[in-house]
Amino acid sequence: MPVFDSIKASLKVFFTNNNYSQVAVLVDENTKRHCLPILKEILPKRHNLISIKSGEEHKHLQTCSFIWNELTNRNFDRNALFINLGGGVIGDMGGFCASTYKRGIDFIQIPTTLLSQVDASVGGKLGIDFNGFKNHIGVFQLPKEVFIDTLFLNTLPEKEIRSGFAEIIKHCLIADAEIWNVIRKKDLSNQNWKELVNHSVKIKEDITLKDPKEKGLRKILNFGHTVGHAIESYCLSQPKRKVLHGEAIAAGMICETYLSVKKGKLPESSLEEIEEFIFPVFGKIKIKKEETEVIAKLALQDKKNSGGKINCILLENIGAPLIDQSISLKEIKESLEFYIG
Amino acid sequence: MPVFDSIKASLKVFFTNNNYSQVAVLVDENTKRHCLPILKEILPKRHNLISIKSGEEHKHLQTCSFIWNELTNRNFDRNALFINLGGGVIGDMGGFCASTYKRGIDFIQIPTTLLSQVDASVGGKLGIDFNGFKNHIGVFQLPKEVFIDTLFLNTLPEKEIRSGFAEIIKHCLIADAEIWNVIRKKDLSNQNWKELVNHSVKIKEDITLKDPKEKGLRKILNFGHTVGHAIESYCLSQPKRKVLHGEAIAAGMICETYLSVKKGKLPESSLEEIEEFIFPVFGKIKIKKEETEVIAKLALQDKKNSGGKINCILLENIGAPLIDQSISLKEIKESLEFYIG
Repeated sequence: MPVFDSIKASLKVFFTNNNYSQVAVLVDENTKRHCLPILKEILPKRHNLISIKSGEEHKHLQTCSFIWNELTNRNFDRNALFINLGGGVIGDMGGFCASTYKRGIDFIQIPTTLLSQVDASVGGKLGIDFNGFKNHIGVFQLPKEVFIDTLFLNTLPEKEIRSGFAEIIKHCLIADAEIWNVIRKKDLSNQNWKELVNHSVKIKEDITLKDPKEKGLRKILNFGHTVGHAIESYCLSQPKRKVLHGEAIAAGMICETYLSVKKGKLPESSLEEIEEFIFPVFGKIKIKKEETEVIAKLALQDKKNSGGKINCILLENIGAPLIDQSISLKEIKESLEFYIG
Repeated sequence: MPVFDSIKASLKVFFTNNNYSQVAVLVDENTKRHCLPILKEILPKRHNLISIKSGEEHKHLQTCSFIWNELTNRNFDRNALFINLGGGVIGDMGGFCASTYKRGIDFIQIPTTLLSQVDASVGGKLGIDFNGFKNHIGVFQLPKEVFIDTLFLNTLPEKEIRSGFAEIIKHCLIADAEIWNVIRKKDLSNQNWKELVNHSVKIKEDITLKDPKEKGLRKILNFGHTVGHAIESYCLSQPKRKVLHGEAIAAGMICETYLSVKKGKLPESSLEEIEEFIFPVFGKIKIKKEETEVIAKLALQDKKNSGGKINCILLENIGAPLIDQSISLKEIKESLEFYIG
């Protein structure tokens, strides 16, 4: 379970209890400016700063090579510590680099965005994008520790809060109808982030502990992600079509809720309820009708698919997901057409 | 424990008991020509052949990218199987690619060289070279199965047998003085490979099961490797200085035995005994006196080092190793000077 406490206090205890030969801190230009100063007095004086450019478009092998090179040049040995200070890209890629450097050194996650606090911080999924496919190369490896402090959320622009909110919504839709009924009655600015982060992390921890390697139950965490990842991958491959992970997942949840209704699993009223909340918060990603085919094909390349069919998570009720639901390319295309309206 | 049996029989049973969405076979030009035909009738008809160039100099990220690309282009999903048919490079790199593709698919090892049968096939160490450093990037991951058939040894040139023999010698020197006394009385052509492979694998299995992540005991497997890897890395970085892994390890064992005597741990007679057997079998790698400094510095970058000191395995007797023996750069240099004589 992650440590929910003042980051300064908990990091201080961590360094008192652990002895490392060297310490590296991975940051991007945003966390270097806004988050690193908060930790300055706690970090060992002779820590090594490794700074990369922010953004999903840098989550690839070349950046890993840069990071591995930095560790090599600074003579990092196996008893060194790697700290990921940032959002999901930093955590996923930094964790992957640490887990593969000399076959693995200790690393800790300090997620600084809402999205990474509720999503990437739990479950040990690490990785990078490859040839436009999201998280295509990676490993499962738990960090030595995860420290979550919602203090960092104050450093974020609103769109980053919105992006993380999509995963919180997802956790409610797959596991807690009650909290869904709490959040859907408030707008973005009135949510209680401290409570919601705690709640979301607990849901994700429960699920991933029961099924660490995603053989069954854990698949429900992919709700919204089959179509959502495809939308995200597609936009990433296009010039000037930046889309945040949460925006793509919000769109994916609409599509997959639509498919749940279409396939007779979920009452239509639930689709309306979800649409009514999601669209005002997230708006709509601009997708042209002629682009739906290629996005649907990208969904086929998703990690969760088996033997040429697309396996998807559908809902039979809010809070009650169904795993391994086979859907066709045509149905995905249709759901995207529904989404663009 | 690896399966020691006719490869055809055991692979047939494996495919009867396991159901995979797709199968890839990684080969190089040598195993494609000499080993693949042996398996042809057993492999699924629609298997995907992935062919790479042989040699340690191709064990790097670019080749991994090529392999990951092949899997992606052929729509491999998480229920696919990856078969490594070849020596240590194929096993280490193919295993690393399989363990990281979509965060890990099943893979099996079919080691075809003596070296990979007694060394790379056990213990789950996978990886690639990076910037000239051996196995610098990798993971620990056990294969689904390892199949060892000494039938493949008939396809090897003598120098490859010699290379694998170094690891067999190492296993005796760190764990079995009795078998050391058997092998040192025969020349290369009179050894019983089937028995020796079995014996070596059992020693390595025992050690790695007791200490899978190399926290203590497993370090003894690094005997000869602190100096040996450095020699290998150095030669690899030079034009036309090809050296086989086993040749470098044989040299490393001489150096580290010398250090064991020099530091008062081992009787001088044991050094003489080891020298008398190793030099006639392996010859001597040509190293100039002025190159010893840079080789010693490479040893410092070794994965096994901690906090700037060089940790090394020494012997206090044949069959009785000592772990975490701190040695200096100067001592390594001196041992290399002893080796070149």
